[in-house]
Amino acid sequence: MISVGIIGLGYWGPNLLRNFAESAGARVTAVCDLRDDRLAAAAARYPGIATTKDARDIFANPAVDAVAIATPVSTHADLALRALQAGKHVLVEKPMAASSADARRLIEEAARRRRVLMVDHTFVYTGAVQKIASLVSGGELGNIYYYDSVRVNLGLFQHDVNVIWDLAVHDLSIMDHVLPSRPRAVSATGVSHVAGGHENIAYLTLFFDNNLIAHIHVNWLAPVKIRRTLIGGSQRMIVYDDLEPSEKIKIYDKGITVNSQPDSVYQLLVGYRAGDMWAPQLTATEALRAEVAHFVECIERGTAPLTGGDSGLRVVQVVEAASESMAARGRLIELDAPAGARP
Amino acid sequence: MISVGIIGLGYWGPNLLRNFAESAGARVTAVCDLRDDRLAAAAARYPGIATTKDARDIFANPAVDAVAIATPVSTHADLALRALQAGKHVLVEKPMAASSADARRLIEEAARRRRVLMVDHTFVYTGAVQKIASLVSGGELGNIYYYDSVRVNLGLFQHDVNVIWDLAVHDLSIMDHVLPSRPRAVSATGVSHVAGGHENIAYLTLFFDNNLIAHIHVNWLAPVKIRRTLIGGSQRMIVYDDLEPSEKIKIYDKGITVNSQPDSVYQLLVGYRAGDMWAPQLTATEALRAEVAHFVECIERGTAPLTGGDSGLRVVQVVEAASESMAARGRLIELDAPAGARP
Amino acid sequence: MISVGIIGLGYWGPNLLRNFAESAGARVTAVCDLRDDRLAAAAARYPGIATTKDARDIFANPAVDAVAIATPVSTHADLALRALQAGKHVLVEKPMAASSADARRLIEEAARRRRVLMVDHTFVYTGAVQKIASLVSGGELGNIYYYDSVRVNLGLFQHDVNVIWDLAVHDLSIMDHVLPSRPRAVSATGVSHVAGGHENIAYLTLFFDNNLIAHIHVNWLAPVKIRRTLIGGSQRMIVYDDLEPSEKIKIYDKGITVNSQPDSVYQLLVGYRAGDMWAPQLTATEALRAEVAHFVECIERGTAPLTGGDSGLRVVQVVEAASESMAARGRLIELDAPAGARP
Amino acid sequence: MISVGIIGLGYWGPNLLRNFAESAGARVTAVCDLRDDRLAAAAARYPGIATTKDARDIFANPAVDAVAIATPVSTHADLALRALQAGKHVLVEKPMAASSADARRLIEEAARRRRVLMVDHTFVYTGAVQKIASLVSGGELGNIYYYDSVRVNLGLFQHDVNVIWDLAVHDLSIMDHVLPSRPRAVSATGVSHVAGGHENIAYLTLFFDNNLIAHIHVNWLAPVKIRRTLIGGSQRMIVYDDLEPSEKIKIYDKGITVNSQPDSVYQLLVGYRAGDMWAPQLTATEALRAEVAHFVECIERGTAPLTGGDSGLRVVQVVEAASESMAARGRLIELDAPAGARP
Repeated sequence: MISVGIIGLGYWGPNLLRNFAESAGARVTAVCDLRDDRLAAAAARYPGIATTKDARDIFANPAVDAVAIATPVSTHADLALRALQAGKHVLVEKPMAASSADARRLIEEAARRRRVLMVDHTFVYTGAVQKIASLVSGGELGNIYYYDSVRVNLGLFQHDVNVIWDLAVHDLSIMDHVLPSRPRAVSATGVSHVAGGHENIAYLTLFFDNNLIAHIHVNWLAPVKIRRTLIGGSQRMIVYDDLEPSEKIKIYDKGITVNSQPDSVYQLLVGYRAGDMWAPQLTATEALRAEVAHFVECIERGTAPLTGGDSGLRVVQVVEAASESMAARGRLIELDAPAGARP
Repeated sequence: MISVGIIGLGYWGPNLLRNFAESAGARVTAVCDLRDDRLAAAAARYPGIATTKDARDIFANPAVDAVAIATPVSTHADLALRALQAGKHVLVEKPMAASSADARRLIEEAARRRRVLMVDHTFVYTGAVQKIASLVSGGELGNIYYYDSVRVNLGLFQHDVNVIWDLAVHDLSIMDHVLPSRPRAVSATGVSHVAGGHENIAYLTLFFDNNLIAHIHVNWLAPVKIRRTLIGGSQRMIVYDDLEPSEKIKIYDKGITVNSQPDSVYQLLVGYRAGDMWAPQLTATEALRAEVAHFVECIERGTAPLTGGDSGLRVVQVVEAASESMAARGRLIELDAPAGARP
Repeated sequence: MISVGIIGLGYWGPNLLRNFAESAGARVTAVCDLRDDRLAAAAARYPGIATTKDARDIFANPAVDAVAIATPVSTHADLALRALQAGKHVLVEKPMAASSADARRLIEEAARRRRVLMVDHTFVYTGAVQKIASLVSGGELGNIYYYDSVRVNLGLFQHDVNVIWDLAVHDLSIMDHVLPSRPRAVSATGVSHVAGGHENIAYLTLFFDNNLIAHIHVNWLAPVKIRRTLIGGSQRMIVYDDLEPSEKIKIYDKGITVNSQPDSVYQLLVGYRAGDMWAPQLTATEALRAEVAHFVECIERGTAPLTGGDSGLRVVQVVEAASESMAARGRLIELDAPAGARP
Repeated sequence: MISVGIIGLGYWGPNLLRNFAESAGARVTAVCDLRDDRLAAAAARYPGIATTKDARDIFANPAVDAVAIATPVSTHADLALRALQAGKHVLVEKPMAASSADARRLIEEAARRRRVLMVDHTFVYTGAVQKIASLVSGGELGNIYYYDSVRVNLGLFQHDVNVIWDLAVHDLSIMDHVLPSRPRAVSATGVSHVAGGHENIAYLTLFFDNNLIAHIHVNWLAPVKIRRTLIGGSQRMIVYDDLEPSEKIKIYDKGITVNSQPDSVYQLLVGYRAGDMWAPQLTATEALRAEVAHFVECIERGTAPLTGGDSGLRVVQVVEAASESMAARGRLIELDAPAGARP
């Protein structure tokens, strides 16, 4: 039974609290937040939990094995580092840190301390993304041609970060899990419509080897909510619509066939193929529930998490590069050699 | 009664033929195509029309007042130029020409000859785009923040041009008509998934003054057909879905309100506003029918068309610049000073 | 501050508990259920609440002003009657009782004791139904022509009642609130696909005066979930889709115009009118929250609830008659004179 | 090569004309209509076709092998009878005749003359309905539980018949083709909202053996167009949405499992099963094209058509009975022993 301390009970923290509290392998020993009302609500809901406004109480508590951090991004690195230094395993909210330098520091500290460092890339643990990953790695789509995601709605304008840090992180963490290779370079564009604010609309193109291209459209100022991803492959193509109550994933047996040795440029090179569509039944388990169980299992068995520090770092690297490109109106930014081989 | 000659009876030409033939102000005198079967079909359908395989017969025919050209892009400029030189008015299929140099040549010739030069930007004549133009120019949306279009499907791979020349031209011609200003620069990305082929997927970002941004996603290799445009303004926002049988345009009384003089950066700057949605009844007239009537009227009255050579040139300029940017993986290409003030 | 006792913590009871607990005008003093685990969960969530497995403890508790009943239908009448006899106000789950005779007994007891008797017709308190009621009563639709509802999904087969008692009750309670008159007769059809089971699919037609017709399709065995109501009027028509995340109500300015004095039967009698569509912004308040506040207000002010015993009785009368008609494969059953004038 | 005469060039006749004209096995020799403009249009489109305003010219023409009739319903029987008496094969628009007595007369005449008598139940020849028929007859759905169709829109009010004769005929012809048995009885309800008009909204329930139930909702006065059919079976269920551009048919591997020997009525009798959804690729051939080819083949080979006179009669029988039931507000009308065994 892993004993967990949770830091931050704002928007996401209560979900972590609930899932750890209901987990078979863990219990929540202490929670930390700056606001009394949140601590009181947690204590009322889960009698017996220690509450504190000072994270040091969590780090110093020898009964705490692991710390889950759901605070503003700017505080992730400092809190996670101190937790690791105190010998705790760490689950940190996405994005992992506010800079890749910070992310690297956490990875090093976790390695040195031999502690589990996991990033809360929740979507990776959904039935939909698990199914996509399995289809891609099983070769069902053939060669992957493109990954295109639209994630827009009338959303909360963040004060401290642009929309890439807020929304594109979801897509980048999914791509990090399902795509067969790592992006080599990024070109991004975007603008702010609020004087003095960060970009609220952004477009990212990611270049991979082998003509794989990815694109992400994120927008806090859209009249409708869209969460749709198209994944094109040489054999099949996927439409993943996260707003569908069921049938989130549709697999189309469609595509083109290319005549590789045409006699003439004027001859028809491309054939079209249309077949059935198929929407597989997906696991209904709450993603965070599966993720919490995975975190506990990694701690107990000493195994590496699906969404460890390395994936957290890769996501932060792309976000940093994309923000730099966006400031230069689409200038191509090469990405460093990938941090970690494909799992 | 304007007498029209039509050159090219492939995919689009028969629609021009039908609409000119049914027009109150025009009649079709002659048609030209390289294939006998197409000429025979036209003659059977419209007895009395002269048919020829040589465009010179059309140009030399003194009974022909105007020529409509629906041939491959590479032939537009030459055919249109010769028609103008023969003193004919010209309606040319989109894109107007294969290069902006060619487009400029046509504009000059039309001006010199005092002939109507119109580009078949059909979407501009739809009830939906007419309504959007009227909402934007009437100030209903407030300041325009962004224009975002997705135009994808499993489409015919073109041999001679990339997907921007084929599909993005539609969006660029709509934007040219409805947006309050001209793009200043473009950044585009895209790849080809067919060896030796032109790019079949592309993403264009267009930068305007005043933080207006536009983005176009075109793709010949998508599993589903999507034709959706989001237009964001400071007062209202539009979703234009061209695949909706009715209710193609939905206007959302939604948005943000920005506190312009915040006391502190930590204070909430942005408020959210949600109101009704409204889908106006649109004109049901076929766009090409309205367009043909407009062409006839411009000839008869000597007035400038809504989609004249200048708009055709502006679209070609952006396509050229976007193709150049795409080849350089997103490098920003500044656009020349706009060719023509806003109508 | 009204003190409330809640009987039944199965599927719906916890929602009542939460809403009463969070209500400004009420507090929950005691809860009753037959299962220990449910009582323990309630006590943990709301420390200080008395728990019991015997409803008599609730009735005998002088600190309890009102009782909310969320138990199986067969027990509604007995529990509600005993609560009224003990001088408590009563909010009872829909359907109000298992027979109209029972429903009448409750109405009489509440009148004699001068207590509030309210039926939990939750949908009546949604923003969508409130808007429909206001449009109908404000004459926006003109004369109401029809009300057509489809309420199907792969649902829980009930053991003790047919699908009309389970699902059609929702539609009947909405119709009772929004339609301008009461049904005069009903014809229903349906079958059971489970040996020995109650009907799991049913179709009800309700006849009103003035050619108003209503129809309800309910089905526990549908592959997809549908919750869609069409309401036709002489001036406008409504589509109410409860599964839409926003835009649940769409109002169509469409219809026919009838030439009332045609010269000839062969002449066109009917004209068609198509106009804009409009989706009004709806109140986002949780329906049960509004309902609980309304119950408290009725107790405090001694006013009649929107969904009092009379509306509960009318719904039960139709369900009884429809079940009788269904057993006779559509035989028309006349309904008694309406119990209560339109509010 | 079958020589065809076509009578009636109103709404549907031109489609018959085009498909027969383009058919490999047939040619159109003559057309008949009362209006000069329609005849002129046909002659212009298909030079060489004989035109007449008198159907007798068609019947008397020895060069005509077969007659296609697309006139108002009230004239079907007379024209078809005279065509058969003249020795012609007949394809008659749906509904086959204005009464079952008339329909029987045609069947007898065709049998006596050994001529093909086929009814234009076009939907039967669509890829969607062909696929449904194949799934049902192949046992993919298990036992069929229900068939539920909604066919509503703002449609043309007919002067001479109610909405059942106009719209429900489509569903009845599809059911006649795909369902494993024949209806035994019908209960229908409906009203007219136009003084002196026929019913413009109607609901039909059809009872079959083995608890199979069917229901059809037709409405000329709906704000939106809906064409959706649910078919429930013990193994799988189908949603057939004819307005979907692709994926018209979705097959759900969902349902219930019933415990046949429960120990107790209080025990859970019913289990729920959810699996994948599958949308098969459908034939894209125009239905009328396939139907015309089938008619020609039946004539050439002397075989019985899929939608022969017997199916036309069965549909008319149900429409008659449903209209009678509707007039009596849902009174159950037993249907005669089925006219013809299942094909």
